[in-house]
Amino acid sequence: MGEEHWFETTVRVRYQETDQMQVVYHANYLVWFEVGRTELIRQLGFPYQRFESLGYMLPVQEARVYYKKPARYDDELIIRSKIVACEGVRLVFAYEVVRQRDGVLLVTGETHHVWTSLELKPVRLEKKEPELYALLKKYES
Amino acid sequence: MGEEHWFETTVRVRYQETDQMQVVYHANYLVWFEVGRTELIRQLGFPYQRFESLGYMLPVQEARVYYKKPARYDDELIIRSKIVACEGVRLVFAYEVVRQRDGVLLVTGETHHVWTSLELKPVRLEKKEPELYALLKKYES
Amino acid sequence: MGEEHWFETTVRVRYQETDQMQVVYHANYLVWFEVGRTELIRQLGFPYQRFESLGYMLPVQEARVYYKKPARYDDELIIRSKIVACEGVRLVFAYEVVRQRDGVLLVTGETHHVWTSLELKPVRLEKKEPELYALLKKYES
Amino acid sequence: MGEEHWFETTVRVRYQETDQMQVVYHANYLVWFEVGRTELIRQLGFPYQRFESLGYMLPVQEARVYYKKPARYDDELIIRSKIVACEGVRLVFAYEVVRQRDGVLLVTGETHHVWTSLELKPVRLEKKEPELYALLKKYES
Repeated sequence: MGEEHWFETTVRVRYQETDQMQVVYHANYLVWFEVGRTELIRQLGFPYQRFESLGYMLPVQEARVYYKKPARYDDELIIRSKIVACEGVRLVFAYEVVRQRDGVLLVTGETHHVWTSLELKPVRLEKKEPELYALLKKYES
Repeated sequence: MGEEHWFETTVRVRYQETDQMQVVYHANYLVWFEVGRTELIRQLGFPYQRFESLGYMLPVQEARVYYKKPARYDDELIIRSKIVACEGVRLVFAYEVVRQRDGVLLVTGETHHVWTSLELKPVRLEKKEPELYALLKKYES
Repeated sequence: MGEEHWFETTVRVRYQETDQMQVVYHANYLVWFEVGRTELIRQLGFPYQRFESLGYMLPVQEARVYYKKPARYDDELIIRSKIVACEGVRLVFAYEVVRQRDGVLLVTGETHHVWTSLELKPVRLEKKEPELYALLKKYES
Repeated sequence: MGEEHWFETTVRVRYQETDQMQVVYHANYLVWFEVGRTELIRQLGFPYQRFESLGYMLPVQEARVYYKKPARYDDELIIRSKIVACEGVRLVFAYEVVRQRDGVLLVTGETHHVWTSLELKPVRLEKKEPELYALLKKYES
């Protein structure tokens, strides 16, 4: 069995991210997933804005979020991200959101992306940027 | 074949909802899904805040979003919502986001909810509020 | 005394816009002010995206918000906007947020803007687009 | 001349916080001001949620934001916060948002708050919590 390549970053819940149920509003996890994959890519040595300066974008095609327990105001959360598929025009990330103080898993999810040009046309990264593609492929797990 | 009970409402894309890709940021569709199910419930004659004043909440357990085409700033969008499952503690909604000017389907999705008390404990709505349950059940499609 | 040219539009408070104080999170009023000035400009017959397609933007230089009473989930709000200054590169709007069901004034504010090119350099609208400038000037009050 | 008690924290600009002008959407600075004052209060040894568990809230009465230069996606920003007035029911904070990589000042602002009960009635903190009041007063600058 291959090893898993999780990358981690942390966020602290902002007052703005709560709702009147006194927990985090559910859409914010998609924002934190984005923070997670941005940090994953940065930790690979390739800050996301370089994609856009090279003329590529990585829009979301599909997102799934599974809510187990609520996060609350001022909680420190660990956002864990990994690449689960890198093939052709597709890139798929999985995520876990863990409460730092007790390690409880709160939310999981995944997002599916397509490499595109700045005009949002699909692009085969493997042909255009083989080294970058190989780097991402290496961390697929 | 049974008829489908879609409920509709509209939103116009705000500048705040765009991102530097010059399209709508993907997490906003979850916010609009919430606007859609709120309007569905209102159109059934049962404004959502009445749930909370009765002591119930309806947190999201799972969300899925499928992005086909991007919405852009100032687009008028039709948010279509329907109840696809109402059983026991669960309520599931499906959604379609359609661009008003040309009827193009941009995004689809679904959200799964559980009826809970204000302390976020699951509640069997069928027992506690049989009339409300029957009303929701009637529009399941 | 000159007449006042208020323009109105409405928003309904979304669940996402509440916070754990169970009122609207304060930053959202800036988003609604933006909705208000967008509608003002649309009602003048000049949808905002035309500015950007002409090569102009209207970033915010200064914002002030005065919170009198809180808005709550599902409240219908009237956003009233007017042009209070249109001179040279500057455009200033004032706003009132009024609760629809009882006419209570909840929030007031203003935003100061500068006309710029797409590269964010100031632009003298009066020279570049005298008709548009004259139209805005006409509604200054 | 008294010394100034600035407290600092950092944020990194999220994709969600950008808009189609390809800069940070202006309302986000109010969210970061909140992050700044939360950290200020935490650094004083008094996490904000303790206010709410004691039965106090600190809603915003007035906010002013001055935008000098835009922040962009992935910028690291230093949020500097200080207490500029602590008197009776009022607490006023000032803020500076500085770009970390070159120290350029991007945005300044202030927020005015009132101490209230959980029902949003004004509360004289000096009488109810003299030690906490004295602590805040000590850092007024």
